[in-house]
Amino acid sequence: MIASKGYAAQTAESALAPWNFERRDLGPHDVLIAIEYCGVCHTDIHLTRNEWFPGIFPMVPGHEIVGKIAAVGSHVKKFKLGDRAAIGVMVDSCMECEDCRNGQEQFCNVSPVVTYNSLDHSGKPAYGGYANNIVAPEHFALHVADSVDLAGTAPLLCAGITTYSPLRKWGVGKGHKLAVVGLGGLGHMAVKFGVAFGAEVTVLSTSANKREAAKALGAHHFVVTKNEEELKAAQRSFTHIIDTVAADHDINPYLGLLKTNGVYINVGMPVEPWQLSSFTLAMGNKIVAGSGAGGIAETQEMLDFCAENNIVSDIELIDIKDIQTAYERMLKGDVRYRFVIDMSTLK
Amino acid sequence: MIASKGYAAQTAESALAPWNFERRDLGPHDVLIAIEYCGVCHTDIHLTRNEWFPGIFPMVPGHEIVGKIAAVGSHVKKFKLGDRAAIGVMVDSCMECEDCRNGQEQFCNVSPVVTYNSLDHSGKPAYGGYANNIVAPEHFALHVADSVDLAGTAPLLCAGITTYSPLRKWGVGKGHKLAVVGLGGLGHMAVKFGVAFGAEVTVLSTSANKREAAKALGAHHFVVTKNEEELKAAQRSFTHIIDTVAADHDINPYLGLLKTNGVYINVGMPVEPWQLSSFTLAMGNKIVAGSGAGGIAETQEMLDFCAENNIVSDIELIDIKDIQTAYERMLKGDVRYRFVIDMSTLK
Repeated sequence: MIASKGYAAQTAESALAPWNFERRDLGPHDVLIAIEYCGVCHTDIHLTRNEWFPGIFPMVPGHEIVGKIAAVGSHVKKFKLGDRAAIGVMVDSCMECEDCRNGQEQFCNVSPVVTYNSLDHSGKPAYGGYANNIVAPEHFALHVADSVDLAGTAPLLCAGITTYSPLRKWGVGKGHKLAVVGLGGLGHMAVKFGVAFGAEVTVLSTSANKREAAKALGAHHFVVTKNEEELKAAQRSFTHIIDTVAADHDINPYLGLLKTNGVYINVGMPVEPWQLSSFTLAMGNKIVAGSGAGGIAETQEMLDFCAENNIVSDIELIDIKDIQTAYERMLKGDVRYRFVIDMSTLK
Repeated sequence: MIASKGYAAQTAESALAPWNFERRDLGPHDVLIAIEYCGVCHTDIHLTRNEWFPGIFPMVPGHEIVGKIAAVGSHVKKFKLGDRAAIGVMVDSCMECEDCRNGQEQFCNVSPVVTYNSLDHSGKPAYGGYANNIVAPEHFALHVADSVDLAGTAPLLCAGITTYSPLRKWGVGKGHKLAVVGLGGLGHMAVKFGVAFGAEVTVLSTSANKREAAKALGAHHFVVTKNEEELKAAQRSFTHIIDTVAADHDINPYLGLLKTNGVYINVGMPVEPWQLSSFTLAMGNKIVAGSGAGGIAETQEMLDFCAENNIVSDIELIDIKDIQTAYERMLKGDVRYRFVIDMSTLK
């Protein structure tokens, strides 16, 4: 077994604190990554606090992981020692079902293993990236270009792929008018991708105070949704909306902002069900689309696209000791735009 | 003015009864159609009874209209006297907005005129097809091939285009597994189109008693959704579902039957809002799509496709005096699959 250390929640009620644990020894197809940075995702808060469903404790959260290959199994071909590598939201799957064969391992329902709060194929808990290292099959490790800023790359593994994947699926690009709802970890990446893909990007916000921030990210327009005139002027004007807001909210007003055949994409994953009218969707052939992360091949494609186009997440680098403060600030929306743990602070 | 006769509801509480009224004189671009058959759509019941919203009375329902051109305006080029012609769910629009220019006149929100329960561009009520004639701009009249069964063609103008359009939009065809929910006027057309487009078609029904009828329409499979084993076997098996049920129902169980990237299309237009979870949609990148009728060019395309492929609606031809009995039978689901009024019975 491999001695590891990290930060864990011992129960859903406890604060994260230092914890020593063990990773499995490397199988022939496994790699060991020495973690340098790990992004802090809103999901980490949900899961460590049982806000979605009862979790597996102790829980080491973290699924935006970047670092360097520190060891390779005997049959590993994809990586060599010292290579940069990354892990996102999943670390194993059956590799044989229709979803796995189609490169959508994130939807495997035969034997999926998400990066933490999950049981691996031996039945032991998987521990995430708030730690000094991680073991995973090489298939689930991604290449990271040597040229990119590694800390700013960490959030691409969840916030990045979660917004990249649906924007690609729906072909968002030149000639499209994309609205981004919410300007947090996911939202700011959606703006960057929308702009990079050639779309005309509008940030929708309940308050005017994010106007300059939106422009700084490259957004072409800004609409304050609580301003009735601005909202009225935006009716039937967007081809796509990507909604990144995690808090419960009514999505019907956004559907009114879509042109005929417009697509509303939700990646915010609010907990309460939406109330959705068949008439609202029928008038204008509207589409409501969910999207969950992305497959391994597409995640690699996204990382390569980001490296070529000089895209990283805007981050605040933190000491792992400050993780609870970071959670509190995230709950207030007080982060531009993603906290990333500098794992060298884990002593 | 043109003296016309038909069946009208004088109020939302009254039964349909004979009524004499006037149509406008033909403008230069108008045609007069002598109606031979008119299909009976569930919408006719909803609207004459104010079940969706308060209507305009007296109301002459009917928007599945076929007949022959009886007069043409001075500038009409599309038709000549004696041509077969049809009218669907709309009779006018602005012709200038983005939707109209894109051939989606049904979503014009500048000056749309639906076939009945609507005001025309002069501000007068539009009266529908339970009548001996109708006047409409030539743009909104469709050509019907001389070779087809005219009575069986009437329901194509609403039930046909409403199912044809989304199946075409979503590219349903060879290699796809389509499930059809509900085997009424819309559902039986969805089965016929799905089969004609080359998809593998399954009818989903709450009871086993429609099994033979589904097979007779060409469906390849039949699943009784109240049979837990059959439902379990159907999980994650369809690429597309088209739900034609007008009664309120939970759509979440159907979303579980979709493969990754599967599309749930609703054309049944139930009144109560759905409760829809962001998680249900995210797991498998599911899509919920609305669809409302189809534009004029696509309606013509559908009629031409049906003529070439020998597709008509399965109908029960009725005397217009029996319209109330037909409504009562429709509310019990007792019709295979569409009532069509033989307008020669209107004396």
